[in-house]
Amino acid sequence: MTQCSLFKKVVEEFKKMPGIGQKSAERLTLYILSLSEEEADMLASLISDVRRKKKYCKVCNNLCEEDICPVCADIRRDTSVICVVEQPMDVIAIEKSKAYNGLYHVLWGKLSPLDGIGSSGIKANGILDRINNSSTKEIIIATSSDTGGQTTALYICHILKDKNIRISRIAQGLPVGTSLEYVDQPTIACALKGRIQIDRCTG
Amino acid sequence: MTQCSLFKKVVEEFKKMPGIGQKSAERLTLYILSLSEEEADMLASLISDVRRKKKYCKVCNNLCEEDICPVCADIRRDTSVICVVEQPMDVIAIEKSKAYNGLYHVLWGKLSPLDGIGSSGIKANGILDRINNSSTKEIIIATSSDTGGQTTALYICHILKDKNIRISRIAQGLPVGTSLEYVDQPTIACALKGRIQIDRCTG
Repeated sequence: MTQCSLFKKVVEEFKKMPGIGQKSAERLTLYILSLSEEEADMLASLISDVRRKKKYCKVCNNLCEEDICPVCADIRRDTSVICVVEQPMDVIAIEKSKAYNGLYHVLWGKLSPLDGIGSSGIKANGILDRINNSSTKEIIIATSSDTGGQTTALYICHILKDKNIRISRIAQGLPVGTSLEYVDQPTIACALKGRIQIDRCTG
Repeated sequence: MTQCSLFKKVVEEFKKMPGIGQKSAERLTLYILSLSEEEADMLASLISDVRRKKKYCKVCNNLCEEDICPVCADIRRDTSVICVVEQPMDVIAIEKSKAYNGLYHVLWGKLSPLDGIGSSGIKANGILDRINNSSTKEIIIATSSDTGGQTTALYICHILKDKNIRISRIAQGLPVGTSLEYVDQPTIACALKGRIQIDRCTG
């Protein structure tokens, strides 16, 4: 017994976090111990605060501190497009790409019948209300490209089928900067299937 | 601006932790948000607590909650051997190996003249006091095998040179389970230099 009980408790808590194993958890705990008491208290109160102030945007379901998230509240955004994503992380990733200026809709999950996650397990119905009440012209489905993500994409297509609206799916293909020889076969198949005419691509 | 200010603040705090980059920090923050308020508060108070209750063992400098750490307080440990390590993490690693039953001495660093860390930057002097006051027969130097660790090992040898005591350095060589072809040249050189006679090895 070299580790004290409190130390071990903190390690156990860190181990519950995604991507953190035993060694990382120990390293993080030692990091906490290397902080000044004020810094540790500051971190602790931030953790309490961020959780306590958690709210969901009433429009897009994304996390926020107000009733409406900064994206939905931003009048410079293109309100005619809604990009449907699984998680808040996806919004962060797309925003970082700086390639999109429309709105979002966060599903908070994807369909996964094997895990018992059906259509009631994702927040997809809000999309319909948004379309009925606004000038939405296109829905971009940006769920992940695994089975659950694809199933979710199909489901969203299904619930939107009666709407006079463009529905698109983000492209599947070669990641930028990758050589063909390192890409797996399903990706190559998708890349071939999703090919676009060069004049349209450069235009 | 999709992320709220508090969210960003928490991400920035997580990014200061060792081994945590932007993406991991975002994932950890979303993990915090996925907790119940009680769980988040519990984590926060653990972080405050573990830091506030931090103490150093008066004997070996290791982290502990009492004046004396559990290793030093354990009467079943072999008090004739002291293993000198750089960090509390090293104590954890050696304890996990279950190959050592002696005491420890934590230096809290290694010599690194380029970074301005000289002999006053590590807690090495306590070793002398411990040797003078106890029945220590051997000092095992288990600092890391990089330049700083080696320099520290030499320094400890130097301060102990007048003591009638065995000083040893943990072996450098092939990690267990590794094939020779994947090991770098300096390690092979060390492994050759540190070879031991087979009869002694199996004996």
